[in-house]
Amino acid sequence: MKIVLIGAGNLATNLGKALISKNYSVQQVYSRTQQSACTLAQKLGCVYTSAIDEIVMDADLYIVALKDSVLDDLLPSLVRGRESALWVHTAGSISISIWQGCGLNRYGVFYPMQTFSKTREVDFTEIPCFLEACNEDDLMLLRNLAKSLSHKVYEADSQQRRYLHLSAVFACNFTNQMYSIASRLLEEHGLPFEVMLPLIDETARKVHTLKPVEAQTGPAIRYDKNVIDKHLALLDGHPLWSELYTLASRSIYEEKQSKQTEQ
Amino acid sequence: MKIVLIGAGNLATNLGKALISKNYSVQQVYSRTQQSACTLAQKLGCVYTSAIDEIVMDADLYIVALKDSVLDDLLPSLVRGRESALWVHTAGSISISIWQGCGLNRYGVFYPMQTFSKTREVDFTEIPCFLEACNEDDLMLLRNLAKSLSHKVYEADSQQRRYLHLSAVFACNFTNQMYSIASRLLEEHGLPFEVMLPLIDETARKVHTLKPVEAQTGPAIRYDKNVIDKHLALLDGHPLWSELYTLASRSIYEEKQSKQTEQ
Repeated sequence: MKIVLIGAGNLATNLGKALISKNYSVQQVYSRTQQSACTLAQKLGCVYTSAIDEIVMDADLYIVALKDSVLDDLLPSLVRGRESALWVHTAGSISISIWQGCGLNRYGVFYPMQTFSKTREVDFTEIPCFLEACNEDDLMLLRNLAKSLSHKVYEADSQQRRYLHLSAVFACNFTNQMYSIASRLLEEHGLPFEVMLPLIDETARKVHTLKPVEAQTGPAIRYDKNVIDKHLALLDGHPLWSELYTLASRSIYEEKQSKQTEQ
Repeated sequence: MKIVLIGAGNLATNLGKALISKNYSVQQVYSRTQQSACTLAQKLGCVYTSAIDEIVMDADLYIVALKDSVLDDLLPSLVRGRESALWVHTAGSISISIWQGCGLNRYGVFYPMQTFSKTREVDFTEIPCFLEACNEDDLMLLRNLAKSLSHKVYEADSQQRRYLHLSAVFACNFTNQMYSIASRLLEEHGLPFEVMLPLIDETARKVHTLKPVEAQTGPAIRYDKNVIDKHLALLDGHPLWSELYTLASRSIYEEKQSKQTEQ
């Protein structure tokens, strides 16, 4: 199976390396930025291009890992002349229906749900991959590919994938922002961020065995107004963080209340 | 050194077990709830009481691990007659000055910063402990005690400890709430929370080597309005989560902008 990677960002880099490590033949990398295409192609030992009309015509699988916002514009010209191959995109928030109107018979989605940074190696075998395809044969092909890269392969339709992506924004991006606010508060008061790491690790470990709502601790769950008011006073110079503090505390408390009502 | 534990909650339970495992002599457990006192005392192999006047008079160290909100009311009656011992509390948000007016010469704070649940064993050696004392001798005594329990012992004054506690609320309680919202979104759409665990783990691991602001990914950092608007539409039935989404995204984007301005 000849594979072409369309994109050379964090996801394409990590997926490309995983493919190579399993002896898949990545034939070419395309990126609109020549330098990015070159860097990734060197890592994968393949050729590259930044011109759409130089993308090889005879690959079996084209994997599109571009920014969500450029897909609408670029897909038609990428696909043109390469309609007999299988095409997949890798975007959590984009429906499979984006392929309709491209004149394809074989298309789908391969969504590896992880936070990728170029400087970090990730263990692809642990990354949940969510698949969708327009026909059963191509779903099987994608399933075989995914299972050779990861232990965690699921099917999800476009509606479920939307919610997966939204959930990932909460569990990853917003979580990281909570870390970030903590790091800036500590920095402002002469304390190193590393003191927070054991707590961060335990908070993540806990939800492997407890539901998040059962793992919760701290002042918000008992709505300890005394502590909450003192914390808001400490956040006086940071109106956005104050608002976040108030809303997150309300969210914790209301969830606890509704859970108690259910019981 | 004879130690009495005042309190039998999550923190007292974990600290008590750590003390016993290092062969410290925990003489007695006090809790206002007889059952809690009994449960913890059985684990530690010591006696217990729920009556303040039955707390032993001759301990060397009294460790107060009660809810923050009851300290003001209870400390004077706890201390009375036991003024020659060293007294410490374990609360992140309570100043050392709460001991003033209790007629003590020896007092301080022993704050282990972690999220404790009774059902989870924690490795106390990895828990950062923050110390404060009213004199150098007692600080040394606390430092020796803390170092025998944990590899991570720091001194922090009451003002720093306030910010540590506030930072911990962001990095632990609010992070856990982000997990919780993700779990409820997934549940509403027939997806298991476990699919989120590799992402949660990697998000925590990343900040061991990257600053949180450098580890950030996702739609908010590039303010991808297309994705953000779609996510807000998905959150239509959850006004509090929508507000949190908007604020957290703004916080991510503004931090990125201010970092770029600095450079």
